Amino acid sequence: MRAVLLAAGEGQRLRPFFQGPKPLMPLLGLSLLERNILTLQECGIKKFIVITGCYDEEIRKALGNGESLGVTLKYLHNPDWKLGNGVSAYTFQQEYRSGEKFLLMMCDHIFERKGIESFLAEADKLDEEVTLLAADKRLEEVWDLPECTKIEAEGNKALRLGKDLTSFNAVDCGLFFGSKELLDALAETIREGKYSLTDGVNLLAKRGKLCLHWLDGWWVDVDDLPSFRYAENKLLQTLRPSKDGLISKWINRRFSLRITKALAPTGLTPNQVTFLSFLLAVVSAFCFAFAKPFWGGLLAQLSSIIDGVDGELARLKFRQSRYGALFDAILDRYADFLIIIGMTYAWFSSTGSTAALLLGSAALAGVPMSMLFKEKFQAVTGKQYIPELYDGISGYLPANRDGRLFLVMLGGFFNLIPATLTALAAISHLQAIIRLVRARKFMAKA
Amino acid sequence: MRAVLLAAGEGQRLRPFFQGPKPLMPLLGLSLLERNILTLQECGIKKFIVITGCYDEEIRKALGNGESLGVTLKYLHNPDWKLGNGVSAYTFQQEYRSGEKFLLMMCDHIFERKGIESFLAEADKLDEEVTLLAADKRLEEVWDLPECTKIEAEGNKALRLGKDLTSFNAVDCGLFFGSKELLDALAETIREGKYSLTDGVNLLAKRGKLCLHWLDGWWVDVDDLPSFRYAENKLLQTLRPSKDGLISKWINRRFSLRITKALAPTGLTPNQVTFLSFLLAVVSAFCFAFAKPFWGGLLAQLSSIIDGVDGELARLKFRQSRYGALFDAILDRYADFLIIIGMTYAWFSSTGSTAALLLGSAALAGVPMSMLFKEKFQAVTGKQYIPELYDGISGYLPANRDGRLFLVMLGGFFNLIPATLTALAAISHLQAIIRLVRARKFMAKA
Repeated sequence: MRAVLLAAGEGQRLRPFFQGPKPLMPLLGLSLLERNILTLQECGIKKFIVITGCYDEEIRKALGNGESLGVTLKYLHNPDWKLGNGVSAYTFQQEYRSGEKFLLMMCDHIFERKGIESFLAEADKLDEEVTLLAADKRLEEVWDLPECTKIEAEGNKALRLGKDLTSFNAVDCGLFFGSKELLDALAETIREGKYSLTDGVNLLAKRGKLCLHWLDGWWVDVDDLPSFRYAENKLLQTLRPSKDGLISKWINRRFSLRITKALAPTGLTPNQVTFLSFLLAVVSAFCFAFAKPFWGGLLAQLSSIIDGVDGELARLKFRQSRYGALFDAILDRYADFLIIIGMTYAWFSSTGSTAALLLGSAALAGVPMSMLFKEKFQAVTGKQYIPELYDGISGYLPANRDGRLFLVMLGGFFNLIPATLTALAAISHLQAIIRLVRARKFMAKA
Repeated sequence: MRAVLLAAGEGQRLRPFFQGPKPLMPLLGLSLLERNILTLQECGIKKFIVITGCYDEEIRKALGNGESLGVTLKYLHNPDWKLGNGVSAYTFQQEYRSGEKFLLMMCDHIFERKGIESFLAEADKLDEEVTLLAADKRLEEVWDLPECTKIEAEGNKALRLGKDLTSFNAVDCGLFFGSKELLDALAETIREGKYSLTDGVNLLAKRGKLCLHWLDGWWVDVDDLPSFRYAENKLLQTLRPSKDGLISKWINRRFSLRITKALAPTGLTPNQVTFLSFLLAVVSAFCFAFAKPFWGGLLAQLSSIIDGVDGELARLKFRQSRYGALFDAILDRYADFLIIIGMTYAWFSSTGSTAALLLGSAALAGVPMSMLFKEKFQAVTGKQYIPELYDGISGYLPANRDGRLFLVMLGGFFNLIPATLTALAAISHLQAIIRLVRARKFMAKA
C-alpha cells in the first residue's frame, strides 16, 4: 500500500518561530515529514507520494528519493496549492492505479504509532467503496479544539464535517484510508469550485460512505508554537519503555528525557551515547578508587541516567538496532564491574582488609546475575522474563541496574563504601536465589 | 498415528546375561521397551499398542497404562507367540481401525532418533497401499550381518527377503509403516501356515508393494551380549552435543560418558548431578583458598567433567527440562565465581598484594562474559550465537567454561595462581572485545 502525504501548504502560523518550509521543520531531530514517513515505515508502508506546493524544490532536495530513509519517495507538484488542500490531495489522481487503496495523511499531523497501527488494522477489513477517517471523540483531550475540523457522527458513520459545526461529537484527525471513491468525490467538489479536502469528504459523508475510526493514542496538528511544544512533550513521554525499574521510572527518566530532548537535534548516535555512559562509569570508578567517593557516586548515577538516553534517542530517531542492544548490554556490565572494583580498591587501600577483598568479590559476582538469569530464562523458555510477573515481592529489591547504581550513588555521597558493597552483594545474590527457587515452580507448571 | 511394538518373544540368546523378560532388559537406565516408547514419543507418537506373548503379565505390570512415560499404552496378548512373530504382529488386527496407518517396530531393535524421524517423514508421503520398511544398505557397517534378514532390492523396491538369501544388497531393520495391506498379507501367509513376519512381508514384496527407506543413523537388533554392548556404546556416543568446546570434546567427554554410563542405572536426577558438580567446585574453591592448589585444580576439573554428565544423563534418560538448563547455567556461574575467589584469596593471603585484588577482580569479571554475550546475542537476533561460525580464529581462545577450568586445573597442578588469574582475565576480556567488534560487522549485514 502507498501513502500520500500532503506537504503543499505554507505554514504561516509558525512563521515567527520557524522560517523554512513547514514539512521540513525539525521536531526532536527529524523533520515533520521525515518523522511521519519513518513512523509509517514502522507500520509496514514502504512507498510514499509526497504532494508539494509552496516549497516543491526545497522538499525534493531535502528528502531525495527516500533511499536514506529506507523507503521509496515520489513527488507530485500541485501548482494550485493556494486554492486548497482538496486540490492538493486530488493531485494524486495522476498517479492513482486502478483498484488501489491508499493512506492519505497531512504531513504536519503527528500521531502515536500505535494509533496508526490500529487505524491500518481496521482499514484492512474495510469495504471497497468506503473511506475511513481517523477521528477523535475524546473532545476534552483534543489539542486546540477551536482549530479542529469537527464531525457530527452517528455510530461510526460521519454525517457532516466542518470547522464551524455547532453540533458535533468528534473531530477529524487528518488521516484517511480510501480508494477511487475519495478521489471521485474530490473531483466533484472541485468542479463545483469547492477546494478543501473537507468539502470532498463531506460529500462522502452525505452519501453515507464515510466511516470513522476512533483513534487511540495521542495525535496533534502541529500548527503553531504551542502545538509544536505539545508534540515534543508527547513524543518524549512515548519514549518511556513499558517496563522500567522503579528508580528509573521515578528518578532517572525525569533527567534522561530532558537530555534526550537536548541531544535529539545533534548528530550523536545512540551507540555513541552508550559509550559516553560507559566512559562516565570509568571516571566514576577512578573517583572511587582515588578517594573521591562523592564524585564517584555522582558520576555513577549520571552514567545510569545517560544509560537511559541511548535507548530513548534510538526510539525517538528510529535508530534502534540489534547491535545497539548488544553493545549496550555488554558495556553496562563492564561499567558496573569497574565501579565495583573501584569501590573495592578504595576500601582495600585504606584498610588492607581481607573483608574488602571478599565482599568486593561477592558484589562483583552479583553484578551480572540479574541479566544472566533473565537472558537464560528467555533462551530456554522462548518467553521474556517479566520481573513484575514472576518476582513477587522480591521484585522490590533494587537488584537491577538502576537500583544498584542508585545505591552506589548513596554509598558515594555518604562515604559508606563497605556497607554499599555488602548491600549490593546481598541483594543481587538474594534475588538470584529467590528467582531460582521460584522458577522451579512456575516452570514446572508451564 | 499409533505405534505397534512387538514384545512377544522369549529372548533366549540373552539368557545367561539377563534372566527377566527381554523387553524389560535395562539398557543404560531404561528398559528396551521404555527406551523405544520414549524415542517414538520424541518423534511425536503418543499412542502405543504393545503385543505381548511370553511375558504378558510382567510387561503389563512394569509399564502400566503408560502414564508415567507420558503416553497411552494398550496391550494385546498373543497366546500363540511361539508360532512366530508374524502371528504376533497380526494380533494387532483386533485393534485395527479402518483406514488406519501405523508404525510397527520390534521392541528389541534400538534406533538413533534421527533415523526414525526421517523414516516417518518419508512414510508421511507414501501411497495408501504401500508398506514402507526401513532398510540398511551399508552392509559393511551392519552389526551381526549373518543374523540379519537380507533383502534383494531394486531401487527402493524390495524383490524378496530372507535370512538365507545369497544374493542381497540390503538388510531389514525391523521398522515398518503400513496399513490394512500389511495385515492382509499376514493373514494370507498365516492361513498358508507361514508364521513369520518376513513371510507376510515377502508376499508384499512379491506383489511390488514393499518400498524401502534407506536408514541413516545407527540401529541394532539387541539379541545377545555383544549387540547389547554395541547398543550401549552407540547410545553413549549419541550423547555428545553437536557443539562442544575443544577441551570438552577431546578430554572431558571421555570421562563424563563413562560416569554417565555408571550413573544411568541409578535414580540420580540430572539436577542432582548439576548440584554435585557445583559442590565439587565449592570444595575446589576452599582447597585453593587454604593452600591446597593441587586438590583445588583437580576438583575444578572434576567439577567441569561432571558438568557434562547432567546433560548427558538428561538426554540419555529423556529427562531434559528447561528448568534444568537454567539451573545448570546459574550454578555454573556461581561455581566459577567461587573458584576464582578462592584462588584470589590464596594469592592475597600469601602476599597481601594489591595485584591479587585487581587481577582477581578482572578474572572474576571475565567469568560471565562469554555466556552474557551469547545469550544477549540470541535475545536480540533470535538466532543462536554459534562460536564456530562467528568467532573466527579467536574461537581457539579457551574462554568457554571447559577451557577456563582446564586452565584452573593446570594452575593448581603447577601452583601458578597469579599467572592463571592473569590468563583467565586476559582471555575472557579479549574474547568479549573481539566478539563485540566482529558482531558489529556481521550484525550490520544480517
